[in-house]
Amino acid sequence: MRDGAVQVGILGLGVVGGGLYQILRDNAEQIRRVAGASVEVAAACDLDTERLRELSVPEALQTTEASQVISNPDIDIIVEAIGGISPALNFVTAAIEAGKSVVTPNKEMIAKDGGEILALAEQHGVDVQFEGSVGGVIPILRSLKESLASARIDQIIGIVNGTTNYILTEMSEAGAEFAEVLADAQREGYAEADPTADIEGIDATNKLAILAALGFGQRVPVEEIYCEGISGVTAADIDYANRMGYVIKLLAIGKRAGDELELRVHPALLPADHPLATVRGVYNAIFVSGPECGEIMLYGQGAGALPTGTAVAGDVIDCARNIVHASRGRAPCTCEGEAVLRPMAEVETSAYVRMQVADRPGVLGQIATVLGREQVSIESVIQESAHDDVAEIVWVMHRGPEKHLQAAMSAIEDLAVVREISSMIRVVE
Amino acid sequence: MRDGAVQVGILGLGVVGGGLYQILRDNAEQIRRVAGASVEVAAACDLDTERLRELSVPEALQTTEASQVISNPDIDIIVEAIGGISPALNFVTAAIEAGKSVVTPNKEMIAKDGGEILALAEQHGVDVQFEGSVGGVIPILRSLKESLASARIDQIIGIVNGTTNYILTEMSEAGAEFAEVLADAQREGYAEADPTADIEGIDATNKLAILAALGFGQRVPVEEIYCEGISGVTAADIDYANRMGYVIKLLAIGKRAGDELELRVHPALLPADHPLATVRGVYNAIFVSGPECGEIMLYGQGAGALPTGTAVAGDVIDCARNIVHASRGRAPCTCEGEAVLRPMAEVETSAYVRMQVADRPGVLGQIATVLGREQVSIESVIQESAHDDVAEIVWVMHRGPEKHLQAAMSAIEDLAVVREISSMIRVVE
Repeated sequence: MRDGAVQVGILGLGVVGGGLYQILRDNAEQIRRVAGASVEVAAACDLDTERLRELSVPEALQTTEASQVISNPDIDIIVEAIGGISPALNFVTAAIEAGKSVVTPNKEMIAKDGGEILALAEQHGVDVQFEGSVGGVIPILRSLKESLASARIDQIIGIVNGTTNYILTEMSEAGAEFAEVLADAQREGYAEADPTADIEGIDATNKLAILAALGFGQRVPVEEIYCEGISGVTAADIDYANRMGYVIKLLAIGKRAGDELELRVHPALLPADHPLATVRGVYNAIFVSGPECGEIMLYGQGAGALPTGTAVAGDVIDCARNIVHASRGRAPCTCEGEAVLRPMAEVETSAYVRMQVADRPGVLGQIATVLGREQVSIESVIQESAHDDVAEIVWVMHRGPEKHLQAAMSAIEDLAVVREISSMIRVVE
Repeated sequence: MRDGAVQVGILGLGVVGGGLYQILRDNAEQIRRVAGASVEVAAACDLDTERLRELSVPEALQTTEASQVISNPDIDIIVEAIGGISPALNFVTAAIEAGKSVVTPNKEMIAKDGGEILALAEQHGVDVQFEGSVGGVIPILRSLKESLASARIDQIIGIVNGTTNYILTEMSEAGAEFAEVLADAQREGYAEADPTADIEGIDATNKLAILAALGFGQRVPVEEIYCEGISGVTAADIDYANRMGYVIKLLAIGKRAGDELELRVHPALLPADHPLATVRGVYNAIFVSGPECGEIMLYGQGAGALPTGTAVAGDVIDCARNIVHASRGRAPCTCEGEAVLRPMAEVETSAYVRMQVADRPGVLGQIATVLGREQVSIESVIQESAHDDVAEIVWVMHRGPEKHLQAAMSAIEDLAVVREISSMIRVVE
């Protein structure tokens, strides 16, 4: 057992880094008790020194020089809370090579470079922990790595992006359109000035790659994950979905499919009585199932200074325990090889499709004939009263190969009687 | 790092011990990969040898002599899955004294003797893990000890008993009475032949003691926890609750109250939109909140061979990692002292009260006057049409000290116009 305090250097004192700093400072006595040693912030580094002053970081700990923090021999743990790939990855690599354990909530970096980072950590006998990278405060990664470590996981479905869940919840509850709610969300700080990574599903894709790696025990080529955002979801779709007993959520879906993995991020109709359906606003939740563990769901705040800071602080405590007990590298990466992802065309899906057609006899039959020819089977269809010679038809298709659905949509779009296919949203049962 | 397999002895091959045995056998390759060593069952001990044969335990591993398993120097980890205090506690004590790590899902033993067991474990430098003791597969204890270790926890509310949740769900969905549903549950194996510990809330009280110790960092005198079961809940109460926008659940409630803890198990009206309200059947869920972590809920199967076996196997893997990395005792008990429980009379509650009264003018006023005199404030009241000169009145009281409510109930019972107070169920907002 080591004596003396464990020293932490924080790189990046933005939302999460700032939250972590507050927690390590304000809950120091509790953390000392559970970690088995005092955990002290030895350096807080940010190019924006205003952030450091706002957090009342003592001047002696303030710095703008990450390299000095990394090379400081007194520091045991580096927390990288800068985000993005560059310079975060260089800092993390340098910290591991300097023999320091690393904690990071950086989902993009872990999703893309996690395999190499963990291999380097194993080589240097240090820990790399990243609970804060998925689901904010939700203890999903440690649960997959530890509590559920013996269980075969068949399926992981998550609401892992707070911005899109906030927007879809507001659209559903206020009956408002996407653009309007997005603008509100930006004003209220629930969406970023450039919301692309959130609303187009890229953020959720990174998180799914991490969940799948831990749940299925294989490294995941994140760039191959099928990704579709919510910018095409309309108030009309949400209204139809609600009337049919569904809600619309942006889901990150991971499933075992034989020797392959099926990984996809897209908006989906989810039955209103599914445990994930009641997850509102900026909350996140992750649903996991398998033959031994049954169905499990973990729910909590997916973002925010103190919730995500709590997840990061939990990792810091874990690393500190390993330093105190000389057991660094105690729970390394256990992925076996790289996952083969099933191409989206081969995935089985069912779908909700809303289209505008000419309001003439025979049109429904003509479309249904195309569906039949392309082997797409119809579960239900609604045609409501027409306006200006245009009728709206809403179909729900039975489950079948995505490629059949795509071929059918393409053929239907070519029909003269079809004005447009307004929406195609998959259904998850 | 230690070479060679980690050897496990299982005491008790009933539901959970049997589930663990299957998991360690069938998922051995995955467990070897994540634990950093093979985890082998070296002995499976049960007085009922039929159980061992049913599980196809190889004859060389079968035994009926727990003391031989405990004294076997090749065994590293003892899993106690017998349940109850005697002989389980003696076996666990002997195992720790023999230098072995212990894993147990025994909630009664941990709730009553956990403090002494963990102190002994620390003295002998071994681990004692008990994730399976609360919430079956739900990874709540490890989350409190690790992921949320930095956070102040203010409140823990759990549905932690599957039998009672199954009964209340069936009563609610079928409109059936308690005794009828209990008999069905016994036939279907969801309730034991002697269901007292479950239906009277004793099992939930043990689990609350464990949750509170980990969440609030204090040892809990389990026998002082206020405990009330569900045998008094009627179909009429559930119907009224539903009509008022509530569901009735048996809740285990833990709150910080200044320097004291407020701990209680009782049926409660819970708003239908509360995250715990949708937990149906034998599922369990635990809701945790605090100033840093916000609101978190973990949901999963609270019982069953493979779900609880998964939790126990996760603990075995944790112990195995500490054996491999020579870091046993890495996360010891961190409780500080014994909790002082706030007496129930001092707790603030609100309540739903259903009573039968004489169907005469002035009765409602007479009762309301008593409530006012006892400082109980009325939130709502429903009086429906009378039968046979008896009217039913349902009150919901505003939040206030429990002692005022009790005094009022006592005074109301003494009124000549009151036939009976049929039900008094607390309301949780």
